[in-house]
Amino acid sequence: MRILGVDPGTHRLGFGVLDVDGPAVSYVASGCLEAGRRDPLEIRLHLLYRGLTDVFAEWRPDHLAVEEPFVAPERGAKSGVAVGQAQALALLAATDVGIPVHRYAPSSVKAAVSGYGAGTKDQVQRALRLLLNIGQEPMSEDASDAIAVALCHLQHWRTSQRSVVS
Amino acid sequence: MRILGVDPGTHRLGFGVLDVDGPAVSYVASGCLEAGRRDPLEIRLHLLYRGLTDVFAEWRPDHLAVEEPFVAPERGAKSGVAVGQAQALALLAATDVGIPVHRYAPSSVKAAVSGYGAGTKDQVQRALRLLLNIGQEPMSEDASDAIAVALCHLQHWRTSQRSVVS
Repeated sequence: MRILGVDPGTHRLGFGVLDVDGPAVSYVASGCLEAGRRDPLEIRLHLLYRGLTDVFAEWRPDHLAVEEPFVAPERGAKSGVAVGQAQALALLAATDVGIPVHRYAPSSVKAAVSGYGAGTKDQVQRALRLLLNIGQEPMSEDASDAIAVALCHLQHWRTSQRSVVS
Repeated sequence: MRILGVDPGTHRLGFGVLDVDGPAVSYVASGCLEAGRRDPLEIRLHLLYRGLTDVFAEWRPDHLAVEEPFVAPERGAKSGVAVGQAQALALLAATDVGIPVHRYAPSSVKAAVSGYGAGTKDQVQRALRLLLNIGQEPMSEDASDAIAVALCHLQHWRTSQRSVVS
């Protein structure tokens, strides 16, 4: 099973691809789609959607896992709107190719990686590199956030599979 | 010039089409795209995007005018996120066909129609029916809200044209 994790944003959109084979999980790829910071919103959305379509075509995931917008007012509603817009693009790209979609709250994603002893963004990235044997290739924060979303989904999916079996 | 106005929502999405010919404005069409209230978000977004693509193909507008999400926390950030997601679909459909996009805050749309003496939603709809000679055909609140967005754009566009001439 191949999972595509997406960390949505309307300027930078991280993605990470993991393969799961029974108990084994392996890192496949990750990256960050970037839209010009000064481009109008509609141009950025268009570029990111086309980029996502390419990611789906290249990596052919079986599941999409995407982070939910954080809607607490103190974090700024505008940021939640932007995350929601980028999330919509990922959902659209997934339904275009007919794969199931799983959405996770930021708190669930954080809980998933804190199980590996990770706290700060930097600690998360180091934990993911060790766990997935990624080595030292450069990786943006958006890409490692996206891998964390994919791992979060893997944990929930394994739990749900165990529930079905037992 | 033909304007497509959109009132975005992830359950119901209103649209309204106006033709402008010099000082004359005429009503062309309006409607409401509806997604199943119980469908998952990704299915609703997919349906609405396909529906919008059809609206663009059928009515071939020259401009898209779309309402911005209202991001004041007291109105609920979740509602702002949903409006932003539906707005993203409209922006994507417009860039697909290469037409310019204009976004208006809810307060601008309200100001545009209050010039016709309209206050409540019902008054807005009656004012629009009279102004545009729409008659008594049934019209949803979402459709008349979308016509209000198109009218708001018309007013801003006329003002900008006058600024260019003077």
